[in-house]
Amino acid sequence: MLILKIPVFNPKIRDYIYTTTSNMKKILFISLVLFISCAFAPQKKAKVIFFGDSITELGVKPGGYVTKVDSMSKAEGKKDDYDFSGAGVSGNKVYDLYLRLEEDVLNKNPDVVVIYVGVNDVWHKTLLGTGTDADKFEKFYLAILKKLKDKNIKAILVTPAVVGEKKDFSNTLDGDLNKYCNIIRDIAKKNNLPLVDLRQQFLDYYKNNNPNNEEKNILTYDKVHLNAKGNQLVADAMWKAVKGLN
Amino acid sequence: MLILKIPVFNPKIRDYIYTTTSNMKKILFISLVLFISCAFAPQKKAKVIFFGDSITELGVKPGGYVTKVDSMSKAEGKKDDYDFSGAGVSGNKVYDLYLRLEEDVLNKNPDVVVIYVGVNDVWHKTLLGTGTDADKFEKFYLAILKKLKDKNIKAILVTPAVVGEKKDFSNTLDGDLNKYCNIIRDIAKKNNLPLVDLRQQFLDYYKNNNPNNEEKNILTYDKVHLNAKGNQLVADAMWKAVKGLN
Amino acid sequence: MLILKIPVFNPKIRDYIYTTTSNMKKILFISLVLFISCAFAPQKKAKVIFFGDSITELGVKPGGYVTKVDSMSKAEGKKDDYDFSGAGVSGNKVYDLYLRLEEDVLNKNPDVVVIYVGVNDVWHKTLLGTGTDADKFEKFYLAILKKLKDKNIKAILVTPAVVGEKKDFSNTLDGDLNKYCNIIRDIAKKNNLPLVDLRQQFLDYYKNNNPNNEEKNILTYDKVHLNAKGNQLVADAMWKAVKGLN
Amino acid sequence: MLILKIPVFNPKIRDYIYTTTSNMKKILFISLVLFISCAFAPQKKAKVIFFGDSITELGVKPGGYVTKVDSMSKAEGKKDDYDFSGAGVSGNKVYDLYLRLEEDVLNKNPDVVVIYVGVNDVWHKTLLGTGTDADKFEKFYLAILKKLKDKNIKAILVTPAVVGEKKDFSNTLDGDLNKYCNIIRDIAKKNNLPLVDLRQQFLDYYKNNNPNNEEKNILTYDKVHLNAKGNQLVADAMWKAVKGLN
Repeated sequence: MLILKIPVFNPKIRDYIYTTTSNMKKILFISLVLFISCAFAPQKKAKVIFFGDSITELGVKPGGYVTKVDSMSKAEGKKDDYDFSGAGVSGNKVYDLYLRLEEDVLNKNPDVVVIYVGVNDVWHKTLLGTGTDADKFEKFYLAILKKLKDKNIKAILVTPAVVGEKKDFSNTLDGDLNKYCNIIRDIAKKNNLPLVDLRQQFLDYYKNNNPNNEEKNILTYDKVHLNAKGNQLVADAMWKAVKGLN
Repeated sequence: MLILKIPVFNPKIRDYIYTTTSNMKKILFISLVLFISCAFAPQKKAKVIFFGDSITELGVKPGGYVTKVDSMSKAEGKKDDYDFSGAGVSGNKVYDLYLRLEEDVLNKNPDVVVIYVGVNDVWHKTLLGTGTDADKFEKFYLAILKKLKDKNIKAILVTPAVVGEKKDFSNTLDGDLNKYCNIIRDIAKKNNLPLVDLRQQFLDYYKNNNPNNEEKNILTYDKVHLNAKGNQLVADAMWKAVKGLN
Repeated sequence: MLILKIPVFNPKIRDYIYTTTSNMKKILFISLVLFISCAFAPQKKAKVIFFGDSITELGVKPGGYVTKVDSMSKAEGKKDDYDFSGAGVSGNKVYDLYLRLEEDVLNKNPDVVVIYVGVNDVWHKTLLGTGTDADKFEKFYLAILKKLKDKNIKAILVTPAVVGEKKDFSNTLDGDLNKYCNIIRDIAKKNNLPLVDLRQQFLDYYKNNNPNNEEKNILTYDKVHLNAKGNQLVADAMWKAVKGLN
Repeated sequence: MLILKIPVFNPKIRDYIYTTTSNMKKILFISLVLFISCAFAPQKKAKVIFFGDSITELGVKPGGYVTKVDSMSKAEGKKDDYDFSGAGVSGNKVYDLYLRLEEDVLNKNPDVVVIYVGVNDVWHKTLLGTGTDADKFEKFYLAILKKLKDKNIKAILVTPAVVGEKKDFSNTLDGDLNKYCNIIRDIAKKNNLPLVDLRQQFLDYYKNNNPNNEEKNILTYDKVHLNAKGNQLVADAMWKAVKGLN
């Protein structure tokens, strides 16, 4: 905060004029310095944290979607505007994000948090018997959003893309995944929050790019984790969403 | 069985001619009777067994799809052509059908067996942890078909319709159900067997008749078991398939 | 807080003596009142919250274990020492407790929290595919304990008793339940926290009181929820543990 | 099969008598040889098939329990008494055995079938959601036994040993495994069939040989499949049971 010294009046006229002039000069000089500072000095970067599971854990590696977003922002001359980082942990479900929200996200004072979760909540039901009930998924998701809102942190929501890339909805988990995507879409709508609907974008992509109805090797290498094309698609969508924030 | 009396030869020529003529007449008369009998008497009915789970177990009740098929056949004046019965047992999966195939189906010498199974194979995975692996599903399905073929019994294949009636593929089990339907479709195709694709017919129906994306009360009363409209749709499809056999 | 008025010295000796005497009397009187207040007035009750799932939700009903603990404490003349309440929600797993810890427990400023959870973490694996991984179970359990410790709230740990009462370890979930009980026992040991080992107490009880190896109707009415005898056994164990705190 | 040469009749009487005498001698000689052959020549070996899952599939390899049983029988001079073979397929559950019973067992005309199954019926519930319901387990087990009995094939029943070797019943699947072992024990008892109770033998072994409550590397190398000691224990038990048949 700028505290301006108010010039002390001098009863002597000559002194008064002198000091007035002198003080005026000082004020002008300070103003100029301040103006230049504001115009050219580095303004605070927007800190963006991608918060998620193994897809995001891999996203910060070379070629990963977080890395790509960072490169794209720099290529567009915005290296001073954003500070991108990933907080992804393999196997994480929505309640795992909630548990480590404070330590891994809030403590880092982000401006924006991109929540990219859901695959394991669905997948682990059949894989390990430890998925997340739909109602609990929503509850924890909302609890995360509340904590972000309490700190005036902007949230971007993301639908989990795929577990299997077949385009005829015959991937084992398609139904449940669609269901959880609908939950996220509803939350975004009701809370007027930006949504990156990766699920829909992937499905759209498959229509034209998966002629043999393959279950992998289109945008993923293993039905879940992103290959080069997948990382690019996700990076494009994320970068667009981040730039779209006002 | 018809036992023809061979006319006794008479050495006397006159008698011979007489008796011959007389016998000729008898033979002609008998032949005529036989011809008329064959033309108008009841020929053997085609025995059709609907083989499945609780949907078929309920199907033989008043208003059930098997009952409806029977009524429809009679309404079309074909009461002497078909003998319809159900062999449905609640909770049955494909290997349960295989286990009781001999006792409940083969021993009854059917002409046609309509195999309508698959819901529990998918559903019980999450409900009880005791669903059927996709490869085992195919194996047992083929084993049933082989046993039918060995006895020259015609098979009609049916895809399981729904577990949840939402039309946007967001019913939890949609993906896996589609997957198992694809297995059945492939078997039908490869073995050149008639297929009643209930799954597709239900999905088509929902497009125009489930405006609010409800999960039940469209063609089922509980996401799985048929209500009146569901029983009618299934009966129509089944009856068409049975009549289509040559 | 007591603020004693210091008697103003009076230079006049007579007055001094008089006022001194007078003030002395006042002080003595006030002291007496204070003493009586402390001796007879209600001291602050220890607020004890039983924090758990449906077993605790039912525990606050008539005949429930929380109700019984309250009655027992009163019968022992300790109605002024304890304030017992339940914070049980049906279907809760350890992470559900964590999610509502602040609202349902911390905000009520308890002195003691009895954590009684684990059945659903194990059971829901097979029932719904949404149980809790063993490592996550421990993580959330420790996270709850940390938040209690941060507020100087005493914790009492409880092992989940049973899902099925057969005594030969042939209840479907016996193995996994024992595993999760071991996790709780280890946490209690490592953190030097009091443990109510209901699991062990139930098993001990069955040795002599379940001659026909029944799966229910010994201490539960449905393999999980407590019948009258079960509520009494649990109440006895809980009351002993609460009294045992120093 | 014995084919007796009928002596050719000789019309000449002297020759006839001679040859008759001569032929009589031949016949007597042949009869003697045949008698001696029957008494001392190798009698038909008892064909024993071990019918099961991956444990048995591995059992026929060098060091496997089937191989060991074969070696032990030979070491005891019984190489001509038994013909041991394995019919184990990885991942098999009881209904898989039923499906391939005819091809892999009945068609080979065994005298004895050792049924060693159950681990996957329990394990696959949580691993894949495709385990076997307890009632279906019993049903298919009995169906296998019936088919063996119809062909006068002797059956030896075996309880599945372990999924995890901890001795305090805290292996995740201990409860369910015990439950399925009880089903097998009951079947053995009710049908008066020999039982190799590997489960009990393994548990007994752990009491004295698993001091640190390890979950593997005692009799298995991975909680399920047998290491050298495990193969020896199983081989001992199997060999004893086979010899015990009358």
